[in-house]
Amino acid sequence: MDADLSYVIDTLFMIFSMTLIIFMVPGFAMLEAGIVRTKNVTAVLTVNVMIYAVASLTFLLVGYEFAFGTWESESVSKWALFLFQMAFVGKTINIMSGGVGERTRIIPLSIFTVIMASFIYPLVVNITWGANILDGTMFDISAMHDLAGATVIHSTGTWALLAAILIIGPRKGRYKNGKTRVIPASNIPLVTLGALLLWIGWFGFNGGSVGSIASKENADLVALTIMNTNTGGLAGAIAAGILVYIQYKRIDITMILNGALGGLVSVTAGADVFDIYTPILIGSIGGALVVFAVPMFDKFKIDDPVGALSVHLVNGIWGTLAVGIFHTDTSFLTQLKGVTVVAIFVFVTSLIFLFVINKILTFKMDSDDEMLGLDITECGIEAYPEFRRTI
Amino acid sequence: MDADLSYVIDTLFMIFSMTLIIFMVPGFAMLEAGIVRTKNVTAVLTVNVMIYAVASLTFLLVGYEFAFGTWESESVSKWALFLFQMAFVGKTINIMSGGVGERTRIIPLSIFTVIMASFIYPLVVNITWGANILDGTMFDISAMHDLAGATVIHSTGTWALLAAILIIGPRKGRYKNGKTRVIPASNIPLVTLGALLLWIGWFGFNGGSVGSIASKENADLVALTIMNTNTGGLAGAIAAGILVYIQYKRIDITMILNGALGGLVSVTAGADVFDIYTPILIGSIGGALVVFAVPMFDKFKIDDPVGALSVHLVNGIWGTLAVGIFHTDTSFLTQLKGVTVVAIFVFVTSLIFLFVINKILTFKMDSDDEMLGLDITECGIEAYPEFRRTI
Amino acid sequence: MDADLSYVIDTLFMIFSMTLIIFMVPGFAMLEAGIVRTKNVTAVLTVNVMIYAVASLTFLLVGYEFAFGTWESESVSKWALFLFQMAFVGKTINIMSGGVGERTRIIPLSIFTVIMASFIYPLVVNITWGANILDGTMFDISAMHDLAGATVIHSTGTWALLAAILIIGPRKGRYKNGKTRVIPASNIPLVTLGALLLWIGWFGFNGGSVGSIASKENADLVALTIMNTNTGGLAGAIAAGILVYIQYKRIDITMILNGALGGLVSVTAGADVFDIYTPILIGSIGGALVVFAVPMFDKFKIDDPVGALSVHLVNGIWGTLAVGIFHTDTSFLTQLKGVTVVAIFVFVTSLIFLFVINKILTFKMDSDDEMLGLDITECGIEAYPEFRRTI
Repeated sequence: MDADLSYVIDTLFMIFSMTLIIFMVPGFAMLEAGIVRTKNVTAVLTVNVMIYAVASLTFLLVGYEFAFGTWESESVSKWALFLFQMAFVGKTINIMSGGVGERTRIIPLSIFTVIMASFIYPLVVNITWGANILDGTMFDISAMHDLAGATVIHSTGTWALLAAILIIGPRKGRYKNGKTRVIPASNIPLVTLGALLLWIGWFGFNGGSVGSIASKENADLVALTIMNTNTGGLAGAIAAGILVYIQYKRIDITMILNGALGGLVSVTAGADVFDIYTPILIGSIGGALVVFAVPMFDKFKIDDPVGALSVHLVNGIWGTLAVGIFHTDTSFLTQLKGVTVVAIFVFVTSLIFLFVINKILTFKMDSDDEMLGLDITECGIEAYPEFRRTI
Repeated sequence: MDADLSYVIDTLFMIFSMTLIIFMVPGFAMLEAGIVRTKNVTAVLTVNVMIYAVASLTFLLVGYEFAFGTWESESVSKWALFLFQMAFVGKTINIMSGGVGERTRIIPLSIFTVIMASFIYPLVVNITWGANILDGTMFDISAMHDLAGATVIHSTGTWALLAAILIIGPRKGRYKNGKTRVIPASNIPLVTLGALLLWIGWFGFNGGSVGSIASKENADLVALTIMNTNTGGLAGAIAAGILVYIQYKRIDITMILNGALGGLVSVTAGADVFDIYTPILIGSIGGALVVFAVPMFDKFKIDDPVGALSVHLVNGIWGTLAVGIFHTDTSFLTQLKGVTVVAIFVFVTSLIFLFVINKILTFKMDSDDEMLGLDITECGIEAYPEFRRTI
Repeated sequence: MDADLSYVIDTLFMIFSMTLIIFMVPGFAMLEAGIVRTKNVTAVLTVNVMIYAVASLTFLLVGYEFAFGTWESESVSKWALFLFQMAFVGKTINIMSGGVGERTRIIPLSIFTVIMASFIYPLVVNITWGANILDGTMFDISAMHDLAGATVIHSTGTWALLAAILIIGPRKGRYKNGKTRVIPASNIPLVTLGALLLWIGWFGFNGGSVGSIASKENADLVALTIMNTNTGGLAGAIAAGILVYIQYKRIDITMILNGALGGLVSVTAGADVFDIYTPILIGSIGGALVVFAVPMFDKFKIDDPVGALSVHLVNGIWGTLAVGIFHTDTSFLTQLKGVTVVAIFVFVTSLIFLFVINKILTFKMDSDDEMLGLDITECGIEAYPEFRRTI
């Protein structure tokens, strides 16, 4: 196909894909606003909007060039490529911010957002999809097959989250006398809306990561990738639903939705290389892993209100390794090495930065403020001021 | 145009259309979550997510090949075509599940979802848009003009719904001493959000059903189809709004939105063959039919909480026949035959399957559980646990 | 590029852009439903749906031909072009209707909607982007650079709003004893969802206004425009957030979101002519202007519940003038002239029409009805009938 023509078509395709990913901004916002208690809803929404604004602008000013080494682009408009990549950066921090919800102050989190978007995430992109400053070293992991960021996005966000939870600790009263207190989601329609918007955003995330639609082969590849992405979500939802039903005899929509998201993460690394049936297996395992991981993290008193570690970390690892298992052209060891290098780098640097920020500004609110809720103490704005509450 | 090029453009077009249709998943979910009482909100959301997961996966494994006879595709990526068709299947059951809301258990409904997605709907597609096993018989209805499924989707879903309502019966206390008890919608913003997302999804539904955008003629046809689709919705909303105002002296948003949806259904069969003014007439009649049909169904004690029969069945029939009336190249009798054959087939098979499932598992919850609400008895999760309620 | 091919691609591009703009319908609806008190939520949703239906149908029947003089189109499907332009018209009135919320009756507002969509807005389009009946006169403003309607849409809607507020007056009890009573938003998740949907819609609004993507240069221009649009929003959000924090020591999401919208308006006139850094400055000023304008309008007892004047009027003017300041090829005086002519025309005609309608039908509800809320008195439908309220 004519180069100008494919330039035009791929630019339109990148803009379309980017737009779908941006629907993940309200997606994460609604999901998290629905999961937390009403006293922390405004705060969680504020954090989501802040992340999109701060992370995206930081990426424009600093991160993008650090990740890719250049703004230039041959086959597609460089501005469309930037928009597509920019749509990713906030997701890393969204994934993380949910897991420290209901107890973390907004300003220190904003500062960490700047660090993630200017340094940690761009460096991960640099050594995987980008300019690759590790080229030729023994740590070179650019051979890892990670289509749309099972490791680069989802694990990166959740390794940072794990570091943050170690520093910040659990919500007040969450673990008491060896028991985990169940804190129910405050608004199930918002949880559902958010998860479904994320699902749709994933089509842009994974489909767009193919990079071009402008040939018959690529058109097939993009469509296959989106189909496999969706199948992963379907299988994850069903597997999680059945498993929870067997265990607890109830049909649990929050687990079904988290299972779907786990399934979606689990096919994010390899949706472009599987046949149409493999994602059923990978996604089912992904959904099942969420069901097992949620109580496991609670056993270790790792308090993660939205289940981000179960959805994104466990499945980020599983999904990346799955490419090594199910795709014959990909080496399992290469995948494992990629997972490990990113894990160590992100966890260690996050821990250091978070530790320093915490020393200066303190992430966790004090105990009384946590009881009152972030909406009053941090924002001065109640989410639903006219509704009488039971708590 | 070059075959490879049109393949690329149409694949992008199918992916775009499919994505819009997937917005109908949160669309239906929010609409129904807003209409039912707060005690049934989680259940209705669970059913919506279950339908998308179960119906889509079933269609992938069984239904698609049954409907079309082959996975192969010449002019567009076969995976994109699958995605587009898969986006339809859940809608059939969504349309149906709303109408049996607030009293129906989730597991028997899941089993019927499998039957709809593997057999009933694929067979309807087979004899209308697909491989056509009735070819050459006296029941051949493939000449019916039904662009995007006024009969194939909307009537199919609601004939199954009618069969289900006959078996399941009305909600407790809905009809008492010859009177219909009004049960107000619990969350009007969700109803509005849902209806507007459905409206947007319709652009993909009807526009994408043209099948190709990759020529000047087709580009015009796609744009005309979307324009006419939208006009049908506009006219339906206005007609319903005015009619209700004249009758009851109030401006009723639930009727305006149902009128819009009725108008959208009514142009679904023929949006590609009308001039730009005809949809104003067809859609207005569609909206008006909703206003008249809602109390009519109640008179017959057919309890349909979301008005699905009035919106989708009445207008599925009206819209299909309207092509025979307003489009000179389409025979009214051909349309009528199509409507009739699908009606009989879907109603009878649904009745049989629903009857058998009902014998084994019982669709309707028992009376005490219905009072408590499905959220507690089926899901164990309240939709809004922190909000004090008046009921 | 081949003419037929660019016709196809641009038709797809227009349909894509139009669809994004239509997401602004739920966007405005959710934003406004979240901002007003629960007793006025149904009414505000009804108004939003009414506006889309009435304005769009009026534009189809009357306004479009008046604005452009012809339905014909050379380079893109005329139906796609209509859809794109139709998506704009409701926005003008959406912008206006929010500002008179919580006290204005629906039927007179519907009549003004007809006038806006058939006469006032089409005439503004006519003299700026359209047939230009002022061609050759001293009032010719067609040289104004206003890419996507900072003046044509945003100022038009808000000059009409200013006229309406002068006639209708403030909400009961809003200004008392020289003080402004703060009326908190009733549902912050809906406010956030709405603002984010508007943000996404803006990509279609500004990107689509480039008019064609079907060449390498245009593909770059579309992508740059969307990038700059987004950057304006990012900068506006951050600037408003920081300013409010400095002033009031709280992190105020409603101001952050209004700052984002202000930033988006401020780059709407010139997103296609700026480099990628200028929108940071323009958008920051846009966000800051919102923070300063909101209390200023209250000082003059101009009661605007959603802050539409601060977001859309102040930034509509600022954004249009900014092109004259930051883009060397655009004359500041030309921009100023455009702003002024539109201001005078829209304000004066709106005032006349609103005055006449008000004499016959009365916009403002009576005082007791305002206390009860529009939902009961105008619609007979409560937004959240099952939730106990504090007020």
